[in-house]
Amino acid sequence: MENRICKLFGIEFPIIQGGMVWCSGWRLASAVSNAGGLGLIGAGSMHPDNLRHHIRSCREALIPGRTFGVNVPLLYPQIEEIMNIIEEEKVPIVFTSAGSPKKWTPFLKERGVVVAHVVSSSAFAVKCQEAGVDAVVAEGFEAGGHNGREETTTFCLIPAVREAISIPLIAAGGVSSRASYNAAFVLGADGVQIGTRFALCSESSAHESFKEYCRGLPEGGTRLLLKKLAPARLVENDFSKAVAEAENRGASAEELRELLGKGRAKRGIFEGDLSQGELEIGQAATMIRHPETVADIFADLTR
Amino acid sequence: MENRICKLFGIEFPIIQGGMVWCSGWRLASAVSNAGGLGLIGAGSMHPDNLRHHIRSCREALIPGRTFGVNVPLLYPQIEEIMNIIEEEKVPIVFTSAGSPKKWTPFLKERGVVVAHVVSSSAFAVKCQEAGVDAVVAEGFEAGGHNGREETTTFCLIPAVREAISIPLIAAGGVSSRASYNAAFVLGADGVQIGTRFALCSESSAHESFKEYCRGLPEGGTRLLLKKLAPARLVENDFSKAVAEAENRGASAEELRELLGKGRAKRGIFEGDLSQGELEIGQAATMIRHPETVADIFADLTR
Repeated sequence: MENRICKLFGIEFPIIQGGMVWCSGWRLASAVSNAGGLGLIGAGSMHPDNLRHHIRSCREALIPGRTFGVNVPLLYPQIEEIMNIIEEEKVPIVFTSAGSPKKWTPFLKERGVVVAHVVSSSAFAVKCQEAGVDAVVAEGFEAGGHNGREETTTFCLIPAVREAISIPLIAAGGVSSRASYNAAFVLGADGVQIGTRFALCSESSAHESFKEYCRGLPEGGTRLLLKKLAPARLVENDFSKAVAEAENRGASAEELRELLGKGRAKRGIFEGDLSQGELEIGQAATMIRHPETVADIFADLTR
Repeated sequence: MENRICKLFGIEFPIIQGGMVWCSGWRLASAVSNAGGLGLIGAGSMHPDNLRHHIRSCREALIPGRTFGVNVPLLYPQIEEIMNIIEEEKVPIVFTSAGSPKKWTPFLKERGVVVAHVVSSSAFAVKCQEAGVDAVVAEGFEAGGHNGREETTTFCLIPAVREAISIPLIAAGGVSSRASYNAAFVLGADGVQIGTRFALCSESSAHESFKEYCRGLPEGGTRLLLKKLAPARLVENDFSKAVAEAENRGASAEELRELLGKGRAKRGIFEGDLSQGELEIGQAATMIRHPETVADIFADLTR
């Protein structure tokens, strides 16, 4: 309990499961929390009513003394409703992302919520500290899904953020193996947030075909695309090739938005459409070669 | 001397100074070798006669018991002449890059040269091992200058290459601070190759204006561009903005080649044209804030 992240969240190991669209419902979050880490329900792919259901189910599944959190992308259209549910359901921990930490941190802190905010730069980490968040997640270029415009890698970002802020720091992006887990602390982090490895484990709600497709991806098998909209790391498939081809010929943001359409992440990750879905995963998928459970992951990382 | 890289090259610290165009002549290479690391003369920006001069000057500047090497991009047009000079001058160590390790490794090994090859993927690292090289340099996305197409970061690449090969492994890309130096070994490397930090130190032959411009660059201040030719990490300036603008509108490889023209790296790095030169540096420049010497760097990393 001497670790600052363990102390802050009241957890056994400084391992946080990243909130991920279509992967991290109550089942994954409670499994991670019960294993001694911090599980996060990913609100980004949930209608408000569904989020309430996941919060309640997660709480029911927790063994005594364990906690959990919710990840909230602040650009979510129904953000007010989400925050009201968080208040009503007395969610103890909230990770915010994709927006300014100034806007909701006071609301959450006043209600006794522990707040972390996800950033991709030192400059934003400083803003988080000024806004009064309890911890910062600094996420590097190798992370899956939505990603910073600076393209700074975890290896370069963590030492820089460590210098810039004094509050607890959580490293994200590329953390999967025991080597990278240990290296994150050497770089200056107090804890890690792991996305990819948890997205591909048994308790993740992602489609089995998606998990199988992503395990052991070749290096270069994901690519940061859609930079004219919001940069996202996508697995190579028919859809991503169409995006890359459009970008190569200079397609406009509008054209890309049309090509992307609606609901592609659900189609790919949750429904398993490996051809036309938007498949989001991090570079670390290369290192994950076999099916495994949350318990397997904790046994490997904390042995 | 128990470290495999120290043993292989006969050096005191497992720190290699990357061969860099317009930065690493005899002055930088001999300073690094004399400090207990391995200095490399970068043949990539030298005419063959000039290379011979640098090899001889480096040897003269070395204190007894120190060694040195030459970095050779295998796509160099005068590669046969370069290799003959290396043989004639009895260069003890050669780092090859930008080409197949199969082609020149036997030639060099037969002449008693210790050979390392630079790669950006596990697949290529395996090919190096099969070709009989003595060590592999695995270089991540955050590195300056020419860069792999896979865009795999150091944090993801090193553990993957470590799993793939058994010969000594040198981590490159983003290694600059003591934290990143230590983390590279935790990720599985036996040694590190440092480019950016040495490029910006006193003994580097780069122009002072270039060094000053690069020190403390903001995150996002470099960008991987020219992907339709050969991907290169460039510092943001008027030239890089013109490239980015052309790429945004889908410019062809031919158009980019014309925009690039000839001799821009020399113009930027060596002559200090900060507006129209091609400025190559790694993401680690963010962390380098003050002028320093090779001795300062070794004192910091090995304290």
